[in-house]
Amino acid sequence: MSTEGGEMTGTRPQRADARRNRERVLAAAEDVLAADGMSASMRAVADRAGVGLGTIYRHFPTREALYQAILAARMEQLVAAGRAATTADDPGAAFFDFLTRILDSARDKKALSDVLAEAGLDPKSGLSRITDDMREVLATLLSRAQKTGAVRPDLRMPELFALLTAVSLGVERAAWSRDLTTSTLSLVFDGLRPR
Amino acid sequence: MSTEGGEMTGTRPQRADARRNRERVLAAAEDVLAADGMSASMRAVADRAGVGLGTIYRHFPTREALYQAILAARMEQLVAAGRAATTADDPGAAFFDFLTRILDSARDKKALSDVLAEAGLDPKSGLSRITDDMREVLATLLSRAQKTGAVRPDLRMPELFALLTAVSLGVERAAWSRDLTTSTLSLVFDGLRPR
Repeated sequence: MSTEGGEMTGTRPQRADARRNRERVLAAAEDVLAADGMSASMRAVADRAGVGLGTIYRHFPTREALYQAILAARMEQLVAAGRAATTADDPGAAFFDFLTRILDSARDKKALSDVLAEAGLDPKSGLSRITDDMREVLATLLSRAQKTGAVRPDLRMPELFALLTAVSLGVERAAWSRDLTTSTLSLVFDGLRPR
Repeated sequence: MSTEGGEMTGTRPQRADARRNRERVLAAAEDVLAADGMSASMRAVADRAGVGLGTIYRHFPTREALYQAILAARMEQLVAAGRAATTADDPGAAFFDFLTRILDSARDKKALSDVLAEAGLDPKSGLSRITDDMREVLATLLSRAQKTGAVRPDLRMPELFALLTAVSLGVERAAWSRDLTTSTLSLVFDGLRPR
């Protein structure tokens, strides 16, 4: 059995140390990207993770594979945060806080997605399972917030998703400042509250 | 003096018949695009306008030049409609109707903008004067609607522009259906009304 192949597809069993290495590389890549931006080199990621360049390329044969894995990891963290919020004491605050968090993440995703798109890859490829999870978490948060009266009862998932998409695109493509994002989002949120 | 050069840059005086020809070609191109989509041929435009292919190319040396002129003409029509609305009896309805009209036009602009972007051209190039006019018209409509109490008094132009951009991007890039656009827009509009 090839351990390497198992690590790359993520479907076959992984040895614990290989998985730890992979996670260490992902965390290092996040740090290096935050510091150096998209000019970050694979060499810098390897140094930061304390592994050889060969280890990086065994886990992520191309820069694009690494970026795709980072995007997936971020989405999974976001879904996990949303799932934790489904038991919050204040369902209204939990709902609006989670929407804000999704849109904050849009800003960081942009540069990675651009590199993937330039390489002719679909940034969303391989994320469909996570997207389904996100949809489920959002539906739960919405329903809880509606029950407490914090969100208008006629708000449905298609419109909620459409609004999230629109504001994400604004943040990503029109490069809104943080202040403009906050004030625009507060107008959108007011439209979601009962009148 | 070269009449042809004057027609192309639009800055030097044009002979009336050349201008009429140019307008006839633009109107024909709109019709042909509506019928044939982006596969429309310059030949079909010439036939529809009742002019020779040479006349088309004298006014619009490339397909991209023709599309750019159509985008500019549509923006000018939109601004003219907005300007007419600044004297409407119901400033609240005039404001929201105009926003709806802007977003309706986003759907039609998408295909033309894509062709220009693919050719490496900026779809917004040469539109800065029209964008300034649009901004001025929107500011007037907003201020009138706020005076009658139809729009919240704390809505400012940056947020209004940001929301228009976001929803336009949603319509253009996420390919919203007409129904989804209408229901999403109604949520956004509710956020703009006084509470």
